[in-house]
Amino acid sequence: MSSKHNAREAIVDTASRLFFTQGYHATGLNQIIKDSDSPKGSLYYYFPHGKEELALTCINRTSETVAEKLRHYVEKSSCTADGVQEFILNMAREAVVSNFEGVVPFSFWLAVETSCISEELRGACQAVFEDWHEVIAQRLIAEGTDEQTAAGKASAVISLFEGALLQALTYRSEQPLLAAAQIIPAMLGTEKE
Amino acid sequence: MSSKHNAREAIVDTASRLFFTQGYHATGLNQIIKDSDSPKGSLYYYFPHGKEELALTCINRTSETVAEKLRHYVEKSSCTADGVQEFILNMAREAVVSNFEGVVPFSFWLAVETSCISEELRGACQAVFEDWHEVIAQRLIAEGTDEQTAAGKASAVISLFEGALLQALTYRSEQPLLAAAQIIPAMLGTEKE
Repeated sequence: MSSKHNAREAIVDTASRLFFTQGYHATGLNQIIKDSDSPKGSLYYYFPHGKEELALTCINRTSETVAEKLRHYVEKSSCTADGVQEFILNMAREAVVSNFEGVVPFSFWLAVETSCISEELRGACQAVFEDWHEVIAQRLIAEGTDEQTAAGKASAVISLFEGALLQALTYRSEQPLLAAAQIIPAMLGTEKE
Repeated sequence: MSSKHNAREAIVDTASRLFFTQGYHATGLNQIIKDSDSPKGSLYYYFPHGKEELALTCINRTSETVAEKLRHYVEKSSCTADGVQEFILNMAREAVVSNFEGVVPFSFWLAVETSCISEELRGACQAVFEDWHEVIAQRLIAEGTDEQTAAGKASAVISLFEGALLQALTYRSEQPLLAAAQIIPAMLGTEKE
């Protein structure tokens, strides 16, 4: 890995951590430069469009990490419900380990704060949700769920775990995530309601 | 209503709107003073501890409004599932009417942005979730659900609708809220899983 690549990575790492822990608005470019030990000017060299371009890079990287994890759990499990449950329980463990300090690598900080900022950032956050949706919906369809039902259930599952994470951070407790994991079989049951 | 009361109300109204639409960090006291047409100094007269005290007042007012609405729907319905469904469908209508401009009066903007700011604001957001939890859990218990199951289901319902609202604002579509409403009967079914 070249040192140029390392400098860019250090900026993205630092920016991700600051955006997730203190929010988009509260994070200034000067703090990113200082905390990442970057030479002055290197941030604008790698991200000529500044803060918004940097935020887009952070959203995309987080999205890939989470989608990979979700895919891993959903694909290795014997059914969608088990996979999603394991994914949420893993988030609960990560939240506890991180001491609910907001370091859970999730796009929702950005989704909330940035949905008012620009169409481009809003679109990037939407693409994140669409990726996760695809993973869950496709697996449900493979299990015999019809497309429309699968789409609705996948959307509800994403709402459930985004909301559970929000509550977990607010309560500083894994309980909301455990409650979410527990309700998954009832939500994803393929029996007719 | 005295003009003093009106001045305080104007400040809280304006602050709520700005906090919800552009976030806590991005909202300055000068903008609140300007947009509410308040005399200079009146903000510090009513809120001597400044921005955080004002945010607490906004959270508490939003909490009461939402809890009242939730109680209204849950208590007038023949069962918890119907009540929660109606509440979420009402949110979907409100989100469409507001054109997803972030004016949906929900504490989650603050919950997310402020959970890193101070213990007092985090505690206020937690109290909001606890109020809603109580409304749903008590109704489930009245229907014969045991306490522990009722607590878990109420938590999952709150996660579901907070997450659905987050997705609705990101997608600028009521679909995630409609999908959430549709899954409620499966989540709240009292049959043993």
